[in-house]
Amino acid sequence: MIIVMQPGATREEEQRVISHLEREGFKVHLSRGIERTIIGVIGDKTRLKAETVTALAGVEKVVPILQPYKLASRDFHPEDTVVETGNRTIGGAAVQIIAGPCAVESRDQLLEAADAVREAGATMLRGGAYKPRSSPYSFQGLAAKGLEILAEARERTGLPVVTEVMDQNLVEDVAAVADVLQIGSRNMQNFALLQAVGQTNKPVLLKRGLAATIEEWLLAAEYILNAGNSRVILCERGIRTFETYTRNTLDLSAVPAVKHLSHLPVIVDPSHGTGRRFMVAPMARAALAAGADGIMVEVHPRPQEALSDGSQSLDPEQFAALVREIRPIITASGRELERQAV
Amino acid sequence: MIIVMQPGATREEEQRVISHLEREGFKVHLSRGIERTIIGVIGDKTRLKAETVTALAGVEKVVPILQPYKLASRDFHPEDTVVETGNRTIGGAAVQIIAGPCAVESRDQLLEAADAVREAGATMLRGGAYKPRSSPYSFQGLAAKGLEILAEARERTGLPVVTEVMDQNLVEDVAAVADVLQIGSRNMQNFALLQAVGQTNKPVLLKRGLAATIEEWLLAAEYILNAGNSRVILCERGIRTFETYTRNTLDLSAVPAVKHLSHLPVIVDPSHGTGRRFMVAPMARAALAAGADGIMVEVHPRPQEALSDGSQSLDPEQFAALVREIRPIITASGRELERQAV
Amino acid sequence: MIIVMQPGATREEEQRVISHLEREGFKVHLSRGIERTIIGVIGDKTRLKAETVTALAGVEKVVPILQPYKLASRDFHPEDTVVETGNRTIGGAAVQIIAGPCAVESRDQLLEAADAVREAGATMLRGGAYKPRSSPYSFQGLAAKGLEILAEARERTGLPVVTEVMDQNLVEDVAAVADVLQIGSRNMQNFALLQAVGQTNKPVLLKRGLAATIEEWLLAAEYILNAGNSRVILCERGIRTFETYTRNTLDLSAVPAVKHLSHLPVIVDPSHGTGRRFMVAPMARAALAAGADGIMVEVHPRPQEALSDGSQSLDPEQFAALVREIRPIITASGRELERQAV
Amino acid sequence: MIIVMQPGATREEEQRVISHLEREGFKVHLSRGIERTIIGVIGDKTRLKAETVTALAGVEKVVPILQPYKLASRDFHPEDTVVETGNRTIGGAAVQIIAGPCAVESRDQLLEAADAVREAGATMLRGGAYKPRSSPYSFQGLAAKGLEILAEARERTGLPVVTEVMDQNLVEDVAAVADVLQIGSRNMQNFALLQAVGQTNKPVLLKRGLAATIEEWLLAAEYILNAGNSRVILCERGIRTFETYTRNTLDLSAVPAVKHLSHLPVIVDPSHGTGRRFMVAPMARAALAAGADGIMVEVHPRPQEALSDGSQSLDPEQFAALVREIRPIITASGRELERQAV
Repeated sequence: MIIVMQPGATREEEQRVISHLEREGFKVHLSRGIERTIIGVIGDKTRLKAETVTALAGVEKVVPILQPYKLASRDFHPEDTVVETGNRTIGGAAVQIIAGPCAVESRDQLLEAADAVREAGATMLRGGAYKPRSSPYSFQGLAAKGLEILAEARERTGLPVVTEVMDQNLVEDVAAVADVLQIGSRNMQNFALLQAVGQTNKPVLLKRGLAATIEEWLLAAEYILNAGNSRVILCERGIRTFETYTRNTLDLSAVPAVKHLSHLPVIVDPSHGTGRRFMVAPMARAALAAGADGIMVEVHPRPQEALSDGSQSLDPEQFAALVREIRPIITASGRELERQAV
Repeated sequence: MIIVMQPGATREEEQRVISHLEREGFKVHLSRGIERTIIGVIGDKTRLKAETVTALAGVEKVVPILQPYKLASRDFHPEDTVVETGNRTIGGAAVQIIAGPCAVESRDQLLEAADAVREAGATMLRGGAYKPRSSPYSFQGLAAKGLEILAEARERTGLPVVTEVMDQNLVEDVAAVADVLQIGSRNMQNFALLQAVGQTNKPVLLKRGLAATIEEWLLAAEYILNAGNSRVILCERGIRTFETYTRNTLDLSAVPAVKHLSHLPVIVDPSHGTGRRFMVAPMARAALAAGADGIMVEVHPRPQEALSDGSQSLDPEQFAALVREIRPIITASGRELERQAV
Repeated sequence: MIIVMQPGATREEEQRVISHLEREGFKVHLSRGIERTIIGVIGDKTRLKAETVTALAGVEKVVPILQPYKLASRDFHPEDTVVETGNRTIGGAAVQIIAGPCAVESRDQLLEAADAVREAGATMLRGGAYKPRSSPYSFQGLAAKGLEILAEARERTGLPVVTEVMDQNLVEDVAAVADVLQIGSRNMQNFALLQAVGQTNKPVLLKRGLAATIEEWLLAAEYILNAGNSRVILCERGIRTFETYTRNTLDLSAVPAVKHLSHLPVIVDPSHGTGRRFMVAPMARAALAAGADGIMVEVHPRPQEALSDGSQSLDPEQFAALVREIRPIITASGRELERQAV
Repeated sequence: MIIVMQPGATREEEQRVISHLEREGFKVHLSRGIERTIIGVIGDKTRLKAETVTALAGVEKVVPILQPYKLASRDFHPEDTVVETGNRTIGGAAVQIIAGPCAVESRDQLLEAADAVREAGATMLRGGAYKPRSSPYSFQGLAAKGLEILAEARERTGLPVVTEVMDQNLVEDVAAVADVLQIGSRNMQNFALLQAVGQTNKPVLLKRGLAATIEEWLLAAEYILNAGNSRVILCERGIRTFETYTRNTLDLSAVPAVKHLSHLPVIVDPSHGTGRRFMVAPMARAALAAGADGIMVEVHPRPQEALSDGSQSLDPEQFAALVREIRPIITASGRELERQAV
C-alpha cells in the first residue's frame, strides 16, 4: 500500500500516519519528494486493516497495491480450476453449452425445450424455477413444482441442470435438484446468500452484477470460496452502460481479464448480455473466440409464448444453427465441444 | 403500449400480433403508415402480461406507455406520504438529519457518537450492526451485540434508530430494535429481503442500487408496498458512473424526479454519495435545496480510527458546522429542521 | 509516480526499469516487499514522459501521484480566479444568472427573450448562433445573422452575451460579438478549437464533455490556459450515465470537486443537465447551494415553438419564478445576485 | 412518432397538440385510453421538425419510431457497402488487418514498424502524424514531417495508410498522403471536421465516441455521407463505463448491431478498446468472430520506447503471433484474410 500525503502535510501529520501504521504492525518506508511525501507500506497482506489511514489528517490518497482477494487469485492458485459436475467438466479443454428456457413454465414446455436443446448439441440444461423479476407483478416462477420438473428433465435427457437460487432459505431445496446453483446478477453481493451456497457441496455459477467491477466480482467469488466451496464458475452477462440499443453491454474483455487474474472458469451469457435474438449467435461466437469456457443461451420451444425474456430467446431451430456456427470457432480456438453423455 | 412493426412486416404478421393481443383481452388499434405499421394497445394496465409480444415475428419494438409500478406512483396516490416513526415525521414540513457512524464498533464509540450528533442537532441516529462489505475479510459488524448498543443509545438520547438489515432471517431481530429498517444499495433487488421487511410494521429506508434506474428503484419500493408495508422512505446515495474522483456520482436530480413520479419521501446520503469528507457539507446543502426530506450523514468520534468509511466520515465538530450551514438552506427552502424530542 | 512490479518480476526486469528511469533523469527508490517490488519515482514533475515505463517487461502498473495539469490547479494558483467580462465578474462574491434561448431563431424571438430574462433578473444573455446538432437534418442556427442579432440584444439590454463557437475558423467572427465564448461539451477535446480560443482575449466558458472525468475537463482547460488565455469558466452540464429518465445526469459534486482542485470559477447548466423543465428550478437551487458561481438556463418566449430543446426551456414567467426561488438560496449561501448594470 | 399525453391532460391541450401537428403537415391519429391519450403521427419522416411538440402543455413524452438517420441506414441501402482504397476492399469477403504504431515518432521507427507488420501479415498501415492528447504537455505528433514519413512507408511496403486528421484546416494536407482519413473518438461530433472530410474523395474511418450511442455514431456517419462522401468505415474502439481494469469497455455487440442497422463496414480496435497488451489478441479474435470486417492494432518495434500507448502496443513478434491466431477464426467465420499486394 502506498500513502500519498497532501502537498502541505506537516511533519507531525506524517509522523502520526507512520505511528498509526507501525502500531498496526506494518513496516513503513518514507520518501520525501519535492512536492509530495509518499509512505510505502511493506508487505501489505492485510490491505483492509490499513484502510483507516485514509481518514488521518494530511493524507491525500491511499493506493492499494495488492489485490484484495486471495483464494480467487491466480497468484495464489496458478493452475486453472476445472469444475466437475455430473459427467461434465467446466474449465478444461471442453467447452460447455448450457441451454434452456429462461423460466420453467410447465412440464410440457420444459421437457420439450430439454429434448430440443439436447438434440441440437447442448451439454447442460438451464431453466429457472425461482425468477428474480424487477416488478412484483411479473411471473415469479413455478417454485418447488419447477424444481420437480427440472429433475425429471435431467432424468430424461441426462443433461446436468443449472438453476438459480435467490433465497438463502431455499438453498437446500434447490441444491437437492440442481447440479449447479446459479447466483443471479442482482444477488452478486447478497452476502448471506453467497455464504449459504458456499456451505453446499454444489458448484456455483456466479453471474457478474450489473454494476460490478471485475474486482468486486472476484471478491464475491471469494465469499463463496472462503465459506469452503471451491467450485465457483464465473458468468459474464453484460454490464450496465449508457447504451440503450442493447439490454446490457456484454463485456467480453472480462473473459481474458478473469483468466489473467483468476484461476476460475468463466462462461458467457449472450442472451441477457444483448437482449436481442439476432445478436445471440455472433456474441456466442465472439465469447468462445475470446477464450470463454462455455456459453449459456436461452432457448424456448415457442419464444413468442415465453413468460419472460421472449425477445432474447432462440427457438430450437435457431439454437441448432447457433451450435453449427460455433463449432468451427471452438475448433479454431483449440478447444472441443463436450460430447454428450450417452 | 405501442407496438412498432418492422419495415417489411407482412399482413399475416400484423394479424398474428393483433390476434395474440385480442386473445389476451386487449383492445387494439392499427395505424398503417408509409414506412411502419403501429399497433396501439388501449388500456394497458397489465403491461407486463403483454410483454410477450416482443417475441412475435415482425415486431420491431414495444414501447410501454404506463409506469410499471402502481402503489408507489403519484398517479395512484397524489398526496405526499408522511412516514411517522417514534416522534419523527419523514416527508412532511420537517427535515430530518440522520447521523452517526457507519458501523457500531463498540459501546463507547456509539454512545459517544450518539451524544455528539444529538448535541449538534441530529434528529435521528444511524449505525450499522450488520455491515455488507465487498470483501469477506473486512469488518462485518458486531451483529446482535451491535443491536443492543443501538437500543441503549436510543434510550439515552431519545433519537430514533436507523439500521441496516442484510439477512432475511434477521429481520425480526433487527426490527425488534430499529425504528427504521435500512435496505442497503447492494440488496435493493434482493426480493426475498424486500418481502420480509414488507411484512414488518417498521418503516423501511430503501437505498437506491448502484446501477438502478429510478424506475427500478420505485419497483423495488413496490415490492415492499405490495407486501403490505406502506411506510417506505427512499434514499439516494450515488450511482456508479465512469467518474473516479468521487466514490459514486450523487444523482441529486433523483430528488425532483422521485417527487414527481411518486408520493414517497426521499432523503439523500452525501457521505456514500461522494466518499470524500470535504464534499459532504456542500452536497448536503444541495440535497436540501433540491427538495430532499432529509439527509443521512456519517459521523464518527474519531474518523481516523473508524473500521469502515473513515475517509468520508465527519468528526463531531465538522458535523456541527454542517448543521449550522444547512439551517439557512432549510429555511430558504421553506422547510424547518425537526426539533428534537425533549 | 509509483511503479508496481509484477509478482514474478526478475531482478533483471527491476534493473531495466530503474535504468530507464535514471536515464530519463529521475531519482528512484526501491522497496522490495514480500509479494511485490515497488519503485518510487521522486519528484515526478514530468509524469507524462515517464509513462513509457508501463510498457517495460515486469511492470504491473504505474500509479501517478501528481495531477497532470498545472495552470488549472489550485496548488499552482491558490487564490480563486475571478473572470471579468463587461460589467460582470464570474467567480467572486456575486452569482451570475445566464439566461436565454437555446438558439437564436429570429430577431423578434431573441429580443423578446432578452427583454424578458433581463426583466426577470438575468445578469447575462445566452443564445446560440451556431448549433452543434447530433443530426445533420436538425436546425443548425442562423450563423452570422444570429451573431448580428445577439449584438443588437446586448446593445438593447446591456447584458453581456455568451455564445458558442464550434468551428476554429469562426473564432474571430464569434469573438467580435461575444463577451464570453462557449465551448460545447462535444468539443471539449477538440484541441484545435481549444487552442484557437486560447489565443483570443475573450473569456471562455468550457462545458464538461459528456464522458469527461474531472481530470480530463481540467486538462482541456489547461489547453486554453497554456495557449495564453487565463480567463476560463468551467460549466457542469451533466454527464452520460445509464439513467434514462433525465437527459443527462447532472453531477453537482463536480462543483465542490472543481473548487477543491482548481482556482477556476464553475457554473452549472440545469437545463441540459436534466432535459426536463420541471427539474430546472430545483437543480438550479441545488447548484447554488453546492457553491456554484452561477447558473445557465434556457428560456424561450414560447418553448412550444422552439426549434431546439423546447422541452427543457422555461417560459419567461417560469424563469421569473426560478429567480425568486433562488434568491433566498443565494443569500443563505453567503453570496449575492449580481445587480444588473443600469 | 407517438405522443403520450399526461394523465390529466385536458381536451384543449389535446386539441392544441393536434392543431400544431396538422399545421406542420402531419396526419394524426387519436387513441383515447382509460388512463392516457395517445396521439399517433403518421409518416413521421421528419421526426426532427416535430420534436417541438415535447414542449406543449399536457404532453408527457414523445416516442420516435423511425431512425433519425437515412443514408447510413440499411433500410435505405440494403446491400453491404464495400469501401475500396488502393488495392484493398473493406467490407467485402476479405478481412483487413490495419497495424502500426500509435504515433509516427521517427523515420526509422515507422519504417521498421511498417516492414515488420507487412512481414507479419498486416494489410494496411496505421500511424499518427497528428495526435490528440488529453494533456497539452504530451507528445503531439511530428505533424507534416510525420505525413512525409508515412508516404515513404507506403511507397516502400505497398500498404495503404490510415492516419488521423484532427484539424479541419489540415484535411487537405492529410488527404494528400492518407489512403484513409481517420476521425478519432474525441472528434466524432466535431461537425465542422465531419463536413470537411465529407467533402474529400478519401474513405473516412470514423471511430465511435467514448460516450456515443450507436444511434449518435450513425448520425455522425450521416454528416459525412450527407456531405457527399459515401465511403465511411465505422470503428468500434471501446466506450467509457465504470470498469477501470480496462482502459475502455470494448463493445463488441456494436458489430452485429451496426451490421443490422447500417450497410457500412465496421472494424474493431482492440488496442484502445482494452489498453492492455495481453488482451489485444483475444479481443481481436472475438471481434472477427462477431463479424467485424477487420481489426486495427497498435504495433511498435520497441513498445517500451513508445511515446504514447506503449502499454497496449504489441511488438512485432507478438503481432505475428496474433496474425497466426486469428487466421483460423477468420476461416471459421467464412471470411478470408486479404492477400497483400505483391
